[in-house]
This record gives sequence, C-alpha cells and structure tokens, in this order.
Amino acid sequence: PTLIASETEQFEIGKQKAKVCMTCHGADGISTQEPYPNLRGQKMGYLISSLKDYQTRERTSGLAVLMQQQADALSDQDIRDIAYFYSQLGNESQP
Amino acid sequence: PTLIASETEQFEIGKQKAKVCMTCHGADGISTQEPYPNLRGQKMGYLISSLKDYQTRERTSGLAVLMQQQADALSDQDIRDIAYFYSQLGNESQP
Repeated sequence: PTLIASETEQFEIGKQKAKVCMTCHGADGISTQEPYPNLRGQKMGYLISSLKDYQTRERTSGLAVLMQQQADALSDQDIRDIAYFYSQLGNESQP
Repeated sequence: PTLIASETEQFEIGKQKAKVCMTCHGADGISTQEPYPNLRGQKMGYLISSLKDYQTRERTSGLAVLMQQQADALSDQDIRDIAYFYSQLGNESQP
C-alpha cells in the first residue's frame, strides 16, 4: 500500500507540473495537432532524454524552438516528474 | 469499400518498409528499450517531421546518430509510408 500511495503521489506531482504541456499535447496525452506528438504512455527514458536534448539545443528545427523555451524552464526534477506522469498516463493502475 | 481497401494497402506498404524500425520500436510499435520511443498510434505529421529532422541533422544527440543513419536511407515516400503505418497502428479499423 505504501508503494501504491507513493506512485499515485508521484503521478499527481507530475500531473500538476505537466499542466502547461497539456495545451499542445492534450489533457489525456493525445495531442491536439498533427505536428505535436502524443505523449500518453511514452517511455520515461525517452521523454527525459528528449527534454534534455531541447535544453542542450540538440533538437533545433522550427518547432523545436518552442520546446527549447519550455524545457529551459524545467529543473532535472521537473523533467523526471513530468516524464513519470506521461509514461504512466493510460496505465490501468492509475486513476 | 474502395477507400478501405486502399487504406489497408497503404498500411501494408508501410508495414513492409517499417520492418527495420521494429527491431528497436517493437513489432507492435511499443519499444523494447527505455531510450527508444513507442511509435504506436503516433501523429503522422510528427513522425514525418522527426524523420526529416534526423535527415537534416536537426536532431544531433548521442542516440540521434543511429536514427540519422536510418533516416538517410529513406525517400520522402518511404517516410510518408512508414509514418502512415505507425500512425494507424493500434487503430481498430486496421487488421
């Protein structure tokens, strides 16, 4: 039970931090526009490295500029929390 | 019926071209490793621009080098076919 409570807590923390992401990537992690990726159930490791690639300017195309600005505002902890949230979104064990 | 046949045909063409992608991104579009993204049901527009970003070296981090090599081998038509396949994968209307 402790473990489950902690996971739910982590999920909620990530959800709060992901509010700004939802504008483009959807409240349910299914994006609202073709150019933007769905993030629902995406691999956590991939989400973390993608956000870091925006921070370090290793993703640089037109639309990447928008994500660079978003990623710059995030700490390493924010990135982990948001990545955890999206990786778990759609997982049946989550509310 | 003609439209449905054509969509199924497109799906199969993309599926054949995507065989090499499946090694890392999974036969069902759910990747086999944390650093690799799931592609199942991903937005077609995003998949196309991502592959083009690898071709034009607008994605350059460590793991991107592997994808640059893969993307270099693809024509614009290949990219569209593969993107269509993954965008439709998991869609109930597909076999």
